[in-house]
Amino acid sequence: MRAEILSIGTELLLGDIVDTNAAYIGRRLAEIGVDVFHRATVGDNTERIVGAIGDALARADVVITTGGLGPTEDDPTREAVAAALGVSLEVSEEARRHAESLLARAGHEAASESAARQALVPGGARMIGNDRGTACGFIAEKGGKAVISMPGVPGEMRGMIESTVIPYLRSRMGRAGSVIRSRVLKVCGPGEATVEDAVRDLLHGKANPTVAPLVSLGEVELRVTAKARCSEEADAMIAAVEAEIRARLGDDVYGAGDDEIQDAAVRLLAERKLTCAVAESVTGGLIAHKLTEVPGCSEVLGLAVTSYSNDAKREVLEVPAAALRRHGAVSREVAIAMAKGAMALGGADVAVSTTGIAGPSGGSVAKPVGLVFVGLAWRQGVACARLSLFGTRSEIKERAARKALDLLRRHVLRRW
Amino acid sequence: MRAEILSIGTELLLGDIVDTNAAYIGRRLAEIGVDVFHRATVGDNTERIVGAIGDALARADVVITTGGLGPTEDDPTREAVAAALGVSLEVSEEARRHAESLLARAGHEAASESAARQALVPGGARMIGNDRGTACGFIAEKGGKAVISMPGVPGEMRGMIESTVIPYLRSRMGRAGSVIRSRVLKVCGPGEATVEDAVRDLLHGKANPTVAPLVSLGEVELRVTAKARCSEEADAMIAAVEAEIRARLGDDVYGAGDDEIQDAAVRLLAERKLTCAVAESVTGGLIAHKLTEVPGCSEVLGLAVTSYSNDAKREVLEVPAAALRRHGAVSREVAIAMAKGAMALGGADVAVSTTGIAGPSGGSVAKPVGLVFVGLAWRQGVACARLSLFGTRSEIKERAARKALDLLRRHVLRRW
Repeated sequence: MRAEILSIGTELLLGDIVDTNAAYIGRRLAEIGVDVFHRATVGDNTERIVGAIGDALARADVVITTGGLGPTEDDPTREAVAAALGVSLEVSEEARRHAESLLARAGHEAASESAARQALVPGGARMIGNDRGTACGFIAEKGGKAVISMPGVPGEMRGMIESTVIPYLRSRMGRAGSVIRSRVLKVCGPGEATVEDAVRDLLHGKANPTVAPLVSLGEVELRVTAKARCSEEADAMIAAVEAEIRARLGDDVYGAGDDEIQDAAVRLLAERKLTCAVAESVTGGLIAHKLTEVPGCSEVLGLAVTSYSNDAKREVLEVPAAALRRHGAVSREVAIAMAKGAMALGGADVAVSTTGIAGPSGGSVAKPVGLVFVGLAWRQGVACARLSLFGTRSEIKERAARKALDLLRRHVLRRW
Repeated sequence: MRAEILSIGTELLLGDIVDTNAAYIGRRLAEIGVDVFHRATVGDNTERIVGAIGDALARADVVITTGGLGPTEDDPTREAVAAALGVSLEVSEEARRHAESLLARAGHEAASESAARQALVPGGARMIGNDRGTACGFIAEKGGKAVISMPGVPGEMRGMIESTVIPYLRSRMGRAGSVIRSRVLKVCGPGEATVEDAVRDLLHGKANPTVAPLVSLGEVELRVTAKARCSEEADAMIAAVEAEIRARLGDDVYGAGDDEIQDAAVRLLAERKLTCAVAESVTGGLIAHKLTEVPGCSEVLGLAVTSYSNDAKREVLEVPAAALRRHGAVSREVAIAMAKGAMALGGADVAVSTTGIAGPSGGSVAKPVGLVFVGLAWRQGVACARLSLFGTRSEIKERAARKALDLLRRHVLRRW
């Protein structure tokens, strides 16, 4: 089955509101195996809504609209759906009673007038109840196709999707329907092209499951999507592809689903019963912030220091003044000394540090903006990586923090 | 002038990503007086992209696309735009050199192959430079209409909108048409209802300029929007309303436009030639991260400590063991001792600290999740605020960090 999503509201076009409804509906439809190839947004204008519904009905079996169902004349969705289907509006007694009782309860003055307007539905449509607001939704069928209209308030829309729309679509699909499931593998370390090279045949060679890459600031997500008759079958198909990807990428895959690199690092440190300390210069607190986003991170993180000034590096982390003088704050020697200092001060098993130039100013030919050293220190040794990052100040901080957490994770994986 | 926005990406249809780009572009177009009546989303499918561009060009003067400009074959926007305009693809030497140099710097193995693909543009198109990533955008004109294509990465897209697309559209519009300008005032401290009470007549009493509130995690934005014949006239209208709002809200208005609370704090400290230090427990590095997002913050911030464990509080910040034992880590006494310790360790003029319970676990009846103490210390004294915050772990950290930075700002405003 094929569906299209139509979001209605001038505030969406003006960018005053970000359309989270369309994403929510898209995800739920994908999960039950409904294909969505087009999505559109129009303002509160009857003619354009009628046009958009017509275009969508020409391509799809079902059109799902959100928005434009309020009680005022600025809310033209009812009229537009009726016009697009060539039927007239009629009063739904059920909807009128629902709206009237809610409005009266809220002490609304023109309860019956507003309620009367909200009770209008395209002739023959069935109601979708709304337990969170006054505006009911409706499902209007014609010629084997259907238009489903819901309010734009996210909580109300979601309630209707779960209570009525998903069951309706499932029943329309009957047993012929299939499910689509997907799982995201998170990769840090190698660049986009390296990851793609490793899994190129999976990206282009298979129609089901599909594997799609998505790149963001030093990480690659690989989304594996399978279409099957039931969830179990889809999950088994995904598991086989996941095993193949993990076999090829090894430790580059740090997690799945909602995992972030800090989740992987904290989990691993906790498993190995290790504590870590952090010394940040260029990342300026971002590594600590990321680690402390993970519930339970207090088991593994005791201390993090943002030593932004040379004084702080020297006095708090005991970076040798000679190293700062001879090599400069942005150097391999200082990165390692910072990590050693943080490990000692925090009494930790392992420490990670960053020093670099986030820009926009402060760069030179020898040490350009984006140059970052990540230091690691543990009881028996030290290590350092030199990175050349690009982007805005904020992006360089983000890339450096992710890379530092990934190096920490890889180090722990290898050594403990 | 009329424009349409086309978002390209299967991940958008599947609901894996919420389309914030379309909202951003919509807002910027509204601000310069470009009408947008339709917006659409299609997946990474050449045929459907060609169809969507054709539909949009039939209705509008300009079509703006985002997404599908990456280096892989999954990125079909270049081909689709060329096909929709009936031209062939050609290599832009400028774009090739740009992509190659960025990729080579990042140590990318297949730099020239990826760069070659990213350098293809529809024949005759002009480049849009990208200072944050490898994919350039382009403006392709034909028959008095234009297709403007940009990558889907929000930071890259925004850079192109501001540097090239807005100036291009303005020059196309010439002197005709009215302008819409807006300015956002940022308010921290009082709650939403208090802010609304103070400016209620402005919110509902005026059609032009309009004043619209937007609430997010402890802050309120007031967007003042004016429509006028020219920018100067619109700016004067906005300035009058801004003066009125500032007169009513006083120091609660900490900034305007893209200002964040950390920008206001760093600016003020720099003006007064003061240095600050930070001691974080519940915010776990987030205050330091926010401060170090501000270019030039090294003038005012030397040291920040995330003392997550009691050991770190005692040993690094010299919080008295007795205070920890008697009052617990989440207490007024410990917040103040942390701030004093950070001030001394960092040799700073003023220090701010946080201690609290971000959850999800760790709360009790006496000290529930969301309880946060913010400490302040300066040479001549100390202060402490007790906050009861709500939300997820992440939201509590965010609210606490903003509140701490706001208290620091207010303190400096009053005392120096």
